Amino acid sequence: MDILILTTGGTIDKVHDVRTERLVFDGSTAVSDILKYGRTDFPRVQSLMSIDSLDMSEDHRDAILQAVINAPENHIVVTHGTGTMEQTAHHLNGNIGQKTVVLSGAMRPQSLWRSDAEFNLGGAVIAAQTLPAGVYAVMNGRVIKARNVRKDLETGRFV
Amino acid sequence: MDILILTTGGTIDKVHDVRTERLVFDGSTAVSDILKYGRTDFPRVQSLMSIDSLDMSEDHRDAILQAVINAPENHIVVTHGTGTMEQTAHHLNGNIGQKTVVLSGAMRPQSLWRSDAEFNLGGAVIAAQTLPAGVYAVMNGRVIKARNVRKDLETGRFV
Amino acid sequence: MDILILTTGGTIDKVHDVRTERLVFDGSTAVSDILKYGRTDFPRVQSLMSIDSLDMSEDHRDAILQAVINAPENHIVVTHGTGTMEQTAHHLNGNIGQKTVVLSGAMRPQSLWRSDAEFNLGGAVIAAQTLPAGVYAVMNGRVIKARNVRKDLETGRFV
Amino acid sequence: MDILILTTGGTIDKVHDVRTERLVFDGSTAVSDILKYGRTDFPRVQSLMSIDSLDMSEDHRDAILQAVINAPENHIVVTHGTGTMEQTAHHLNGNIGQKTVVLSGAMRPQSLWRSDAEFNLGGAVIAAQTLPAGVYAVMNGRVIKARNVRKDLETGRFV
Repeated sequence: MDILILTTGGTIDKVHDVRTERLVFDGSTAVSDILKYGRTDFPRVQSLMSIDSLDMSEDHRDAILQAVINAPENHIVVTHGTGTMEQTAHHLNGNIGQKTVVLSGAMRPQSLWRSDAEFNLGGAVIAAQTLPAGVYAVMNGRVIKARNVRKDLETGRFV
Repeated sequence: MDILILTTGGTIDKVHDVRTERLVFDGSTAVSDILKYGRTDFPRVQSLMSIDSLDMSEDHRDAILQAVINAPENHIVVTHGTGTMEQTAHHLNGNIGQKTVVLSGAMRPQSLWRSDAEFNLGGAVIAAQTLPAGVYAVMNGRVIKARNVRKDLETGRFV
Repeated sequence: MDILILTTGGTIDKVHDVRTERLVFDGSTAVSDILKYGRTDFPRVQSLMSIDSLDMSEDHRDAILQAVINAPENHIVVTHGTGTMEQTAHHLNGNIGQKTVVLSGAMRPQSLWRSDAEFNLGGAVIAAQTLPAGVYAVMNGRVIKARNVRKDLETGRFV
Repeated sequence: MDILILTTGGTIDKVHDVRTERLVFDGSTAVSDILKYGRTDFPRVQSLMSIDSLDMSEDHRDAILQAVINAPENHIVVTHGTGTMEQTAHHLNGNIGQKTVVLSGAMRPQSLWRSDAEFNLGGAVIAAQTLPAGVYAVMNGRVIKARNVRKDLETGRFV
């Protein structure tokens, strides 16, 4: 079963910048390392963009949608910031044909100790292989259907 | 959906002993930390034993089977050493009624950097919620049916 | 030989805040963990403040100076942000009597993988025990005398 | 001030072998990574051997002694297993002329979380620059003179 992982940035990919002392994007993605440490043999990781999901426009979401539609794979994980994962789930929902698309990401960058990145991505790749066609999010060890994706701003968890 | 995680030891739980300079069990499990960092709210982790799966006897496997049968939950993850995961999968297979049981573990202890523990466990908890009743292993980002579980001793991967 | 470690915050102590997605202070210090993992038996860690060194005022520096003077120990490490380590070194220099004071910190928070926090603090506690009375910084594996402390903003290193 | 780091193996360099599930040497050293994360600019790391210090013979110790004598640098750190650090300290002591040699290592491999490797090596490189000619060990944040180096087998600490 062929799986594609599309990366778009988000907290999962943020790294520390020693000059500004902020968490920023440096163009790389943590996903490749996670897949390597996870000892996977997935064939394809494609980086679409490297941005904070709060900066994601309709054009960005269209680019994700096109990448999903154009991909030869039917089982697709999209790593994504948690801030607007909900909007992208709605944007994709109903427009992707007979594909299974799973959005995932992290509340804590993979570059920090004790990140939830590995746990979430491990769940997302399994969900992409086991769920019927549709759009889902996988966070906190839970599968959430596209229309129900909602981030609880108080607890920082998905419900 | 209620999930139970049964721990039995295995590489995932091994820790370094400074006196013998070996990787040993100290009675604790890494699973609780992984679930915490994964920001989950799973209600129950139950430790059955803390042993190397090469030391697992039929009695040990019966204890796992009984714990699965007696559990009120229908979605169960069993963390387990990789050496005899295959035998335990066969032992459970066909004897657990309408439950979904997913075996998982790690090739590299969670106490080491770059372990596959978080990635595998993240996948296992999703598989336990999305797969139909039966026995499976989740390793390397893949779902394997009980009768096909086989560790490739050369590559240290499950196929 | 009794050693005191005074903590003031700085990058070494910054942690990730999941709500704002920034690196912030939560009032705790990474120093205690580093000393524990370093298997030390140092008797005393005293937290003076928990701030970015760019926010450090003359009052803050006076508080550090008073804590140094009042301490019963003669071998003192001060963890400090790197942004104004130079100013604090000058503030203490010449005013601390027969004590050895070593400023140190990190360019990368201890809460991230591959931080320089452990390496720098390990060096600072040795410097505090081996150097004659005076004020020094220890960063990047080097001892720098108070009057020479200077951060190279281009490279993020101390020279 | 030029510093040389000689590596000989020891717990600091042990890595996990997924096939045997033991901690072994793979010929690499953790020292280069530690120096990189520590943001140092030390010019030279030389690997002499990669063995458990319990397997160290008089020939091995002679090789270390020769490397120390032949080095153009006068400030030398030797990473070493903790099991026989005492014997090597005695072997070098009195035979190295006007050089400062600091033995160091770790109780817990650098490949594990929460190792003491970075802390100890950070201290050793400072000790090599600040101490007068002689042979020392740096462990647990302490400097120990060659004739006093002794590992407490109960606590796993140097006293």
